[in-house]
Amino acid sequence: MKATGEVQVIPIGSGVSVRSEVKRAHAILEDSGLAAELHANGTNVEGNLEQIFEAVRKVHETLHAEGTIRIVTFLKVATRTDKEPSLAGKLF
Amino acid sequence: MKATGEVQVIPIGSGVSVRSEVKRAHAILEDSGLAAELHANGTNVEGNLEQIFEAVRKVHETLHAEGTIRIVTFLKVATRTDKEPSLAGKLF
Amino acid sequence: MKATGEVQVIPIGSGVSVRSEVKRAHAILEDSGLAAELHANGTNVEGNLEQIFEAVRKVHETLHAEGTIRIVTFLKVATRTDKEPSLAGKLF
Amino acid sequence: MKATGEVQVIPIGSGVSVRSEVKRAHAILEDSGLAAELHANGTNVEGNLEQIFEAVRKVHETLHAEGTIRIVTFLKVATRTDKEPSLAGKLF
Repeated sequence: MKATGEVQVIPIGSGVSVRSEVKRAHAILEDSGLAAELHANGTNVEGNLEQIFEAVRKVHETLHAEGTIRIVTFLKVATRTDKEPSLAGKLF
Repeated sequence: MKATGEVQVIPIGSGVSVRSEVKRAHAILEDSGLAAELHANGTNVEGNLEQIFEAVRKVHETLHAEGTIRIVTFLKVATRTDKEPSLAGKLF
Repeated sequence: MKATGEVQVIPIGSGVSVRSEVKRAHAILEDSGLAAELHANGTNVEGNLEQIFEAVRKVHETLHAEGTIRIVTFLKVATRTDKEPSLAGKLF
Repeated sequence: MKATGEVQVIPIGSGVSVRSEVKRAHAILEDSGLAAELHANGTNVEGNLEQIFEAVRKVHETLHAEGTIRIVTFLKVATRTDKEPSLAGKLF
């Protein structure tokens, strides 16, 4: 099922600067085959719902493997049956 | 990977009352094998991250199949490597 | 304007355990005169929209004054004109 | 207190297309004196925390006055004491 979404990954307990983890998370989302647009409060994504979830799972797994102890992710996912959902279609 | 989370499903364009869709979404989360605690702004869940995502996918698929045209879901997922994450452990 | 909402306060850079800050945030919300119900992913609140926002502002100000360097808060606020919004009315 | 944030306004019960309400909400945020950057899942804002909250309150009040019956807003607000928070500083 095609979806749009937003992913914001927040490492907890990694210090006040979380830039390296956030960059890493965005890179994993980009490498996952999703359309991925970075903005100041997360990454907007477009792709299959399963693919979005699989990419977020991979972000958690990778960051933990690389030493991040605690991660909270805020996700929005949107689907619709009346037309193909797209990031471009949500702008005006 | 064990996780805790929160799922809030919002049907758009189904009318001002969304109670039946929200009830349906909660029932699907409960039936998915996750620990699922209803509160006024969503359902708190505990289980494997993959299982949480699969349950949310099933909510979207089922509600669309039953006639809901547009759905936005707000999800929080949290994982940690220092101890087993649990809903009970987040209360005080 | 009467509203319901959810407030989740996340201190960043305060270490892996954020329990004391989260407890403090919940206490401030409770002391603000709002109806405040703790759950595993935040505090559900009910009151005037202005009062909710003022309480969240006070949480940020107080935690910073007490040493927390960085705070992200996730807020949901809901209002409606067809009936009085309430936390109780969102359960089933 | 200076803050960055994200505002996503979701009208419920206004039909499947919510474009006009979302455009209206963004215009109110822009007119409020905040830095306001539209993206596919909301508007990123920068300004005083009080000003952000006041703008969101005005969005709810205006949309209700113009006929929207039910509104949910998802808000992220972030503050920090180690440096001036800015939208630009959150990109890489």
